Amino acid sequence: MISSPLPSETLRMASLASFLAPQLAAVNASIFEKMQSPVALIPQIAGYLISLGGKRLRPLLTIASAELCGYEGDRHIRLAACVEFIHTATLLHDDVVDESSLRRGMMSANTKWSNKSSVLVGDFLFSRAFELMIADGSLEVLTILSKASSTIAEGEVIQLTSSHDLGLSEETYLKIISAKTARLFSAATEVGAVVAEAKEAQRQALAHFGHTLGLAFQLMDDVLDYAADQEKLGKRVGDDFRGGKVTLPVIFAYEKGADRAFWQEAFEKGIRDEGALSHAIRLLKESGALLKTKHMAQDFVKEAIGCLDGFPESLLKTALQDLAYFSLHREG
Amino acid sequence: MISSPLPSETLRMASLASFLAPQLAAVNASIFEKMQSPVALIPQIAGYLISLGGKRLRPLLTIASAELCGYEGDRHIRLAACVEFIHTATLLHDDVVDESSLRRGMMSANTKWSNKSSVLVGDFLFSRAFELMIADGSLEVLTILSKASSTIAEGEVIQLTSSHDLGLSEETYLKIISAKTARLFSAATEVGAVVAEAKEAQRQALAHFGHTLGLAFQLMDDVLDYAADQEKLGKRVGDDFRGGKVTLPVIFAYEKGADRAFWQEAFEKGIRDEGALSHAIRLLKESGALLKTKHMAQDFVKEAIGCLDGFPESLLKTALQDLAYFSLHREG
Repeated sequence: MISSPLPSETLRMASLASFLAPQLAAVNASIFEKMQSPVALIPQIAGYLISLGGKRLRPLLTIASAELCGYEGDRHIRLAACVEFIHTATLLHDDVVDESSLRRGMMSANTKWSNKSSVLVGDFLFSRAFELMIADGSLEVLTILSKASSTIAEGEVIQLTSSHDLGLSEETYLKIISAKTARLFSAATEVGAVVAEAKEAQRQALAHFGHTLGLAFQLMDDVLDYAADQEKLGKRVGDDFRGGKVTLPVIFAYEKGADRAFWQEAFEKGIRDEGALSHAIRLLKESGALLKTKHMAQDFVKEAIGCLDGFPESLLKTALQDLAYFSLHREG
Repeated sequence: MISSPLPSETLRMASLASFLAPQLAAVNASIFEKMQSPVALIPQIAGYLISLGGKRLRPLLTIASAELCGYEGDRHIRLAACVEFIHTATLLHDDVVDESSLRRGMMSANTKWSNKSSVLVGDFLFSRAFELMIADGSLEVLTILSKASSTIAEGEVIQLTSSHDLGLSEETYLKIISAKTARLFSAATEVGAVVAEAKEAQRQALAHFGHTLGLAFQLMDDVLDYAADQEKLGKRVGDDFRGGKVTLPVIFAYEKGADRAFWQEAFEKGIRDEGALSHAIRLLKESGALLKTKHMAQDFVKEAIGCLDGFPESLLKTALQDLAYFSLHREG
């Protein structure tokens, strides 16, 4: 699958979303309905962030996973909306923590409103997500998503405390992104399987599909932060660097000994101006660190696609495999 | 009850805590066990805040309510710990939003560590609270506490958006504090009743007890912010004023027309230096605004105490009534 010829990647990414268009429309309707509050600023901020679009990747995963397991009801729509709420809440708090000014090519909420309102509206969305999941009534779903939420926070805290740390190992880095990114992907897919009352093997396969896809997704994010076309990225190229966030490409370049003095000056002494960023990009490209990270992402995607082997062939399965493949080729 | 002669108030506050000392010790043990994480900064920050003590008022309310309804198991211990986790998470985020530097007489977590870590550790505690509640397994409890959490966030957002607004009405102000403070009090007491499988009338009585007690508690907080002895308060006197937070005493003084130009300069033009604070305190005292707020708190306490009428007499009931009464006489 991974080496088969493919049409334009954008088309392919569109394919799962097109395939599930009615369900996705229902998820969007549910999101807009459930984010309402008599407190006007809440739907303003939540609506701003949510209407910036994004790929709705996590809700798509929940829907696709449930339907791949033969689910025919509509609980997965509401749970997919919950997953997106949790994701949106973490985005609001992330932008505060990372001091980001752009999100999906637009001003981030903390810049447009304030850090204070981003913190509080994030709290609201998070609580609302739990309200909706509780209304759904499955303790199994609640267990998966509450554990995912605390794990995400743990991952973010490790990343915060290991910021600027060039001694970060590949292993620790993978632990961080397993927690902060891959965990919500795997929760999204596992919840789909649970709603469909899938067999344990299918549930595990889908959870692992989400996990490995999430890892690949984050690694490609790390690559794009240094290698993307600014126009298409939706945030500033180099934000990880500016924020002193040590990501896998930097770990690889530093391990290889490519201009260590430069990396130390950048991450330990804080000299991270635009000239330093250009030099960092050059080093990451020339040392092969970006390519090595991308190869690792490819391996995770292969593993993800392999997780779907046990499911009978269907257009949905192909669309889901393509989505995984696409994550290697996205530009923002 | 409210006019009966009482021994020293501190003794009386101690009485419910002493009466429930073994249960409170079990709650503390549960809190320290459940806040653990392989990510060292999490128990550091959570433990710092939790070990600052505080009154453990909300967990005490859950335990007392359950036992007042005849509960004899131990689920209320773990749920009381969840209630304290939610409270601690909101404190962490509040201090970020309010830019507070002191909490219970010590440096606040956002000052000692950073706003970023306070946001993330708050998220962790919040998620962990839900994990624990889900492990308890009662959808009824989960419904109460998730609704309380989203309501608290709504209340905080209204307060944020109405900051500096001298046109805030008494009615809107009471709505804000119903949401941001009283809701967790009433959730704490109602959860106690639910665990005890109490009759609907008892459940409603305890929920209303928590609600009115919470209102009284917040109003006394508002009074103390202008009238407390700095040594005993545990935070700086005047922090509401410095932060431009319009509270009920200010609403009363402004409505009465006591030096309106001063209040406008303070809240609309932002002239809130120490001289202005002294003048504000003088105006609030002389206009009777602090006394009027205190009287309102007294009325809520009376209403709270009345909510317990239907319960048979017991030492526990007396201790709970005293706790309500004490809230009018605390100094910090």
